[in-house]
Amino acid sequence: MKKENKDTAILLLHCPDKQGILAAVTEFININKGNILYLDQHSTHDVFFMRVEWDLNGFLIPRDKVREYFATLLASKYEMEFNIYFRAQKPRMAIFVSKLSHCLYDLLAHYEAGDWEVEIPLIISNHEELEPIAKKFGIPFYCFPITPENKDMQTAAELELLKRNEITFCVLARYMQIITPEMIQAYPNKIINIHHSFLPAFVGAKPYHAAYERGVKIIGATSHYVTEELDAGPIIEQDVVRISHKDSVGDLLRKGQELEKIVLSRAVEKHIDRKILAYKNKTIVFG
Amino acid sequence: MKKENKDTAILLLHCPDKQGILAAVTEFININKGNILYLDQHSTHDVFFMRVEWDLNGFLIPRDKVREYFATLLASKYEMEFNIYFRAQKPRMAIFVSKLSHCLYDLLAHYEAGDWEVEIPLIISNHEELEPIAKKFGIPFYCFPITPENKDMQTAAELELLKRNEITFCVLARYMQIITPEMIQAYPNKIINIHHSFLPAFVGAKPYHAAYERGVKIIGATSHYVTEELDAGPIIEQDVVRISHKDSVGDLLRKGQELEKIVLSRAVEKHIDRKILAYKNKTIVFG
Amino acid sequence: MKKENKDTAILLLHCPDKQGILAAVTEFININKGNILYLDQHSTHDVFFMRVEWDLNGFLIPRDKVREYFATLLASKYEMEFNIYFRAQKPRMAIFVSKLSHCLYDLLAHYEAGDWEVEIPLIISNHEELEPIAKKFGIPFYCFPITPENKDMQTAAELELLKRNEITFCVLARYMQIITPEMIQAYPNKIINIHHSFLPAFVGAKPYHAAYERGVKIIGATSHYVTEELDAGPIIEQDVVRISHKDSVGDLLRKGQELEKIVLSRAVEKHIDRKILAYKNKTIVFG
Amino acid sequence: MKKENKDTAILLLHCPDKQGILAAVTEFININKGNILYLDQHSTHDVFFMRVEWDLNGFLIPRDKVREYFATLLASKYEMEFNIYFRAQKPRMAIFVSKLSHCLYDLLAHYEAGDWEVEIPLIISNHEELEPIAKKFGIPFYCFPITPENKDMQTAAELELLKRNEITFCVLARYMQIITPEMIQAYPNKIINIHHSFLPAFVGAKPYHAAYERGVKIIGATSHYVTEELDAGPIIEQDVVRISHKDSVGDLLRKGQELEKIVLSRAVEKHIDRKILAYKNKTIVFG
Repeated sequence: MKKENKDTAILLLHCPDKQGILAAVTEFININKGNILYLDQHSTHDVFFMRVEWDLNGFLIPRDKVREYFATLLASKYEMEFNIYFRAQKPRMAIFVSKLSHCLYDLLAHYEAGDWEVEIPLIISNHEELEPIAKKFGIPFYCFPITPENKDMQTAAELELLKRNEITFCVLARYMQIITPEMIQAYPNKIINIHHSFLPAFVGAKPYHAAYERGVKIIGATSHYVTEELDAGPIIEQDVVRISHKDSVGDLLRKGQELEKIVLSRAVEKHIDRKILAYKNKTIVFG
Repeated sequence: MKKENKDTAILLLHCPDKQGILAAVTEFININKGNILYLDQHSTHDVFFMRVEWDLNGFLIPRDKVREYFATLLASKYEMEFNIYFRAQKPRMAIFVSKLSHCLYDLLAHYEAGDWEVEIPLIISNHEELEPIAKKFGIPFYCFPITPENKDMQTAAELELLKRNEITFCVLARYMQIITPEMIQAYPNKIINIHHSFLPAFVGAKPYHAAYERGVKIIGATSHYVTEELDAGPIIEQDVVRISHKDSVGDLLRKGQELEKIVLSRAVEKHIDRKILAYKNKTIVFG
Repeated sequence: MKKENKDTAILLLHCPDKQGILAAVTEFININKGNILYLDQHSTHDVFFMRVEWDLNGFLIPRDKVREYFATLLASKYEMEFNIYFRAQKPRMAIFVSKLSHCLYDLLAHYEAGDWEVEIPLIISNHEELEPIAKKFGIPFYCFPITPENKDMQTAAELELLKRNEITFCVLARYMQIITPEMIQAYPNKIINIHHSFLPAFVGAKPYHAAYERGVKIIGATSHYVTEELDAGPIIEQDVVRISHKDSVGDLLRKGQELEKIVLSRAVEKHIDRKILAYKNKTIVFG
Repeated sequence: MKKENKDTAILLLHCPDKQGILAAVTEFININKGNILYLDQHSTHDVFFMRVEWDLNGFLIPRDKVREYFATLLASKYEMEFNIYFRAQKPRMAIFVSKLSHCLYDLLAHYEAGDWEVEIPLIISNHEELEPIAKKFGIPFYCFPITPENKDMQTAAELELLKRNEITFCVLARYMQIITPEMIQAYPNKIINIHHSFLPAFVGAKPYHAAYERGVKIIGATSHYVTEELDAGPIIEQDVVRISHKDSVGDLLRKGQELEKIVLSRAVEKHIDRKILAYKNKTIVFG
């Protein structure tokens, strides 16, 4: 199901909460003849979060001046941190994989069906196994085998490749390598991982084996932004599936993989739609 | 867990969607020194829906004038339909039951624990079986046995009783009688029913038997406002539970009853918090 | 995750319930040196259902005589209806599609990953749009455009093609054509459909539009065997996802499609593993 | 919904897995004229688990000899550990509470509705707050305030009270005290706790606060048997509910409490029906 591709601006912001912010932002858009298509806001006692999307047709401020005007007229006054995106500028996504194909197929099926307003210029892997899938879909595949010795060098080469391709965010589709701090700093809250457990339960390797050992009755999957602490970044989406004593570790793996692809795709879709605001290791995910 | 009982006003409105409504409403509150505690809005292409709650401490417009000022200054300009509630005025809820106790117990347990800002002045039934429960909780119990001959007369007596007790909404906690048009007109979108199926599947009597016959793998429960068409009113909340071929009709009944009480209590809580806006046989349920 | 491919026999049976059936069946396997790997049974008051799988290594009765011996020694005595399958003989599955690719991709991703012990010799469609996907995966694609005039003729040609390819079951992966009685009779309880609603709610065309109109808070998907009554065959699997007033019909479509592929793949996996027993328009789905 | 109260025997067993156990057990029941009403079994590669329930009407072995005959004729041969229960002998359950009433009300509502074949001779608490609820339901309430100094003495008094009342299992309905080793040894796998998180995430105190801090998108509740390691005993049942960034800690508490009562009641029902077999810190929960 293709979404309509309108010429819109998307503003994501947060700032100290005080009276009148919402009115000020909506008035800024209204008086400049922007038609608000979507608005959602959230506030804790201290902080105000907002996402607003408006039609750029007839908007008085030219596209390349929107950021500047907003910064000058509102952001500084309210101490806002903000980003403005234009729907016409599609995000560019790099997929990282290792040997498991289920998440990769699901992402590529969405991509080919035109479900998402995104470009996928390349796939990176530390193994060659999934190259045939990349070929099927006509997407360049780059293999960077990783050893303890070459990891820094390979990461540098990957980063160079990402920059050359103007990649705006990365998706780890069951990529089985720890991401280096350099990579994380280059893409802060822009690397989406899928962890095959219901975090914070079963951090680290072999979570299905650990879940089996503990005898849980439900297993889960968690997509999150990658930070320097393993499996501890801001959670974007989680889901679970019921299991029973009848399920072997292999059954958990199979049931879990169905979850993983769903949960990862939901997170990727929200990121592409610029509906996620990461703040202090948590996410605001607008509806 | 008791919610804080602040002195707040709650505004629920809908109107034709056009530019500037949100800014106008928030400005109305801001310039009169109201501190917005909660705001949520939703718009389709045509209609704009909004719920806003603000602190009345320091609000310049006196409580008994808020409605008038809002009507004059905003509602007429934007063709709004609206309601203003004050959290200090607790809604008054009547519970209707027949012979099954599970929903009644769940409602009363919430009530006694102080979970909800509500008064329950009375319980009405067409049978005497549950009177001992009402007594346990010290709530007046009125029995109106219904026959085809006396139904109109009994309903009139019930309505009289509801009015005398200044009841603001009714909850049918597995009350097994069709509600009369008179009652519905007296309480439009103010009578909450729990139907023991995933509507619109299995409308009418014996939905668990029907679900068993059809061989579904999931059963559900639905809370909705009562309208004149049976089980067809605006849906407030639904939930489901997985079943299997091992489950007898009795098992469905047991599993379903757990759902019914949860789903009904969630709907009642949302209604008490004035978070539901019914519009054209659907509900906006604010978060 | 590949399952181990053992040389096993799978027996599915049902019969009038009486004492001693279970003991008789397990003894038949035990005394002939079969090692039971899996056993599950279910009984209503009247009917006894059973699935048992045992290792054929060392089993005294030769593979091509198992059916005969079981029929002679047990089935006639207990009035059993039964099927015996051998895991070494992979089922052969035909996929039917129209224009939507999400279920097709999910099935093919499972197939290519080796998740299922199945052969997919061909894909049939009434449209050409998805031929490129079939090509990607190297699976023969046959297009049979359907008009009211040619429907019988095309169905006959499809049936001929299915037989020539020794197809054992069919999967309708969002195939938008009513299946003819001839096809259903050729594949009784062997045509799996995915319907994009929580049956029996929203039978027929455009269920997401109907769900949107009704204002439900949860949508679902249902996989079932095709029978002559539309969307009324034995249900194999269902699942649901929560929606809200914020979701447009387009959002329902998107969320629903994620469900459809999951629910269809679960049903196909159960069918491939011969874990489903259809009886009187319901299914026993063994764990 | 009352279950039928038949005069049946329930056998729960586990033993090393080998050929012929199932046939031997069912034959033992069949040849002695027992009509099997329910049978479920499970085997890992090493261990065989089974629950079978049969009608005692016409069973040749007298009730008070069943255990001995089974031990002699089968259990020793197959190295079985087993328990035999008679449905006519209702388990006797003690409820432990502190200050929160939601789980207590839910248990008592089931009890009073006759949903469960159980006796509840007493309620124990370390606080007096919930005594009025016990009074409402006419159940003796014993208050044992706990301090570091008196804990051993109070536990001894509680144990004495439990024995005098022939209590067969205990339910900790949000009882906020660590259970002593003496109590656990007196009731091994017979003390059911409800922990207000999705274990093994958020072990220990204040799990809702921890869940809020971590920013999870789903919260859960877990019922388990109490062992000496805190929150680490065999899990009986878990369930979850979706939350969002909009939910405060208070919202998590409220949503979680609905889960807690449901999950605890499901575990209690399974225990009463003798459907749980604890083995090596995990549970087999028969369907």
